[in-house]
Amino acid sequence: MHSPAFNIPPVDVSLTPALQGKIDRKTKPIGALGRIEELALRLGLIQNTLTPALTQPHILVCAGDHGAAKAGVSAYPQDVTWQMVENFLAGGAGINVFARANGIALTVADAGVAHDFGSRPGLIDAKMAPGTANYLETAAMTPAQRDEAMAQGARIVRELAAGGCNVLGFGEMGIGNTASSSLITHCLIGASLEDCVGRGTGLDDAGLTRKKALLEQALTIWDGPKHQPLEVLARYGGFEIAMMAGAMLAAAEARMVLLIDGFIVTSALLVAAKLQPAILDYCVFAHRSGEPGHALQLNHLNAKPLLDLGLRLGEGTGGALAYPLLVAACAMLNDMASFESAGVSDKA
Amino acid sequence: MHSPAFNIPPVDVSLTPALQGKIDRKTKPIGALGRIEELALRLGLIQNTLTPALTQPHILVCAGDHGAAKAGVSAYPQDVTWQMVENFLAGGAGINVFARANGIALTVADAGVAHDFGSRPGLIDAKMAPGTANYLETAAMTPAQRDEAMAQGARIVRELAAGGCNVLGFGEMGIGNTASSSLITHCLIGASLEDCVGRGTGLDDAGLTRKKALLEQALTIWDGPKHQPLEVLARYGGFEIAMMAGAMLAAAEARMVLLIDGFIVTSALLVAAKLQPAILDYCVFAHRSGEPGHALQLNHLNAKPLLDLGLRLGEGTGGALAYPLLVAACAMLNDMASFESAGVSDKA
Repeated sequence: MHSPAFNIPPVDVSLTPALQGKIDRKTKPIGALGRIEELALRLGLIQNTLTPALTQPHILVCAGDHGAAKAGVSAYPQDVTWQMVENFLAGGAGINVFARANGIALTVADAGVAHDFGSRPGLIDAKMAPGTANYLETAAMTPAQRDEAMAQGARIVRELAAGGCNVLGFGEMGIGNTASSSLITHCLIGASLEDCVGRGTGLDDAGLTRKKALLEQALTIWDGPKHQPLEVLARYGGFEIAMMAGAMLAAAEARMVLLIDGFIVTSALLVAAKLQPAILDYCVFAHRSGEPGHALQLNHLNAKPLLDLGLRLGEGTGGALAYPLLVAACAMLNDMASFESAGVSDKA
Repeated sequence: MHSPAFNIPPVDVSLTPALQGKIDRKTKPIGALGRIEELALRLGLIQNTLTPALTQPHILVCAGDHGAAKAGVSAYPQDVTWQMVENFLAGGAGINVFARANGIALTVADAGVAHDFGSRPGLIDAKMAPGTANYLETAAMTPAQRDEAMAQGARIVRELAAGGCNVLGFGEMGIGNTASSSLITHCLIGASLEDCVGRGTGLDDAGLTRKKALLEQALTIWDGPKHQPLEVLARYGGFEIAMMAGAMLAAAEARMVLLIDGFIVTSALLVAAKLQPAILDYCVFAHRSGEPGHALQLNHLNAKPLLDLGLRLGEGTGGALAYPLLVAACAMLNDMASFESAGVSDKA
């Protein structure tokens, strides 16, 4: 195994009492800002400071195609992957709109789209291959491709960190990648495949039945080590998922705040967290997806997202919409008056 | 009855198919942006346009004291009301911080605080009296005071509308006002008083028992028409609640978007909605409070808030935190590409 090495220490919780004390002295009843207080504490611990600040916020959208898509695991044709990458580059997709609205920069990476974009401003060319192989026949990627995709993700993140970014949301595009995520989730958290499979971008009942049958088949024909995150990633993953896993590991190593979106992004995090469990200390969960496997992932990670808005688009849209809550949590910690400073009487 | 008259027509739903069609043609699976799509539809209907825009966002915080506070219905001393108004004016309260973070202007009105602020920049002096009378003895306010508080609220809103504001959040400050809101909610939606009473800013078990007993007593000693919104408002209300009710009615009349916060703000809306049911067409519900009566109010109004962050501070903080979602919904409708414009293939 030559996969990239990361060194992620847990956050230092010795600052917790000082942070909690600062939050509790703010002019409000104890706990009255609920999840915003928890978030402020988390941001303070990640940055190891009583005055956290978010700088150069980014969303990294990784795109890739899936060999299994042609077998019919998605409601949409595979061409939608590259067409949506063009949409990202033109600024017209949901994630463009939400990122702009909230002052977040967007970085789009081609991890392995089955399309020749040529050299394009605004698109990072990190194409491993024009789509993965079909896991209904063989491994989706070779170990070398997996390691290189992870390394490319890490490289992108290190450049963002060097540019001053300390909060990074993750998004993805890849027709067929909920299927891939269902397989990864089943293998790494041990829930039944049945419970990990959903309608993705909108399969009907017949499509859902077909997807489940195909994924059962994908499990049957591989007798590899289904609990090994890197083996599972190579067998069932997408290049965009491998790239996100590497990017997440590098982001936590750089002490960034990781803004985790829905089902597919969390499947990449499952891989990363099996390798480096302390990565979870750096994560903020943005949105609860309706995709049934996401609830299982969240339970497994003991995670509670900030938003529940019925989103099922991907692209990092949940992270972009949750970002203002992180800004508010920092502002609360940094700018809100204390009972003493404001001359307000505390509870009788 | 000489209470101020308002004329609030329902929104014109004839634009619904065109709005929904525009949303459905965006580059995403049908419905994939969940609550953001519902919100975009609502904003389009309120403004009767396919291209809604939010201008000069404001939060109006109304403050007032409650005669019943001295009987012990709150965990905090009454002085906290004026001290928190000072905190608002100094820019140090939660609502200041969240409004600034999200580009929302703040207007603070003294509806009836038991304190002499003098003439102060940034504070609208609309004081009816230094606190209401104690509803454990008599009506909290006279019909004339109620009508004047409502009229003052409407006057403030008309000035904001004249200045270009078309989205208005509501917030409040008043020690004792969850008790007042419990009584109003019980009377106007018919739930048991027991179910409408909660811990407010943090009563312990003994305090909660005492609060319930006092409010039972407040119900017993008044044999007025408990289903009449204006009578109930005068008997149990606060000046800040009456002012918000009038402000809400004027805001809907001006076709503003009304951003509704938690339990106390919604008790003002209950009064307004009993007078003019069409006001609900103009409301966006920001946050689900932990105060038990709020769930009953929301059920009664068939309303589903955008956020559920465990907030129980009031001041309009839930509205300020939800506001970026309204901005995102407008941006989705106005700026996101369609399948046609982006050249993306639709579902197979």
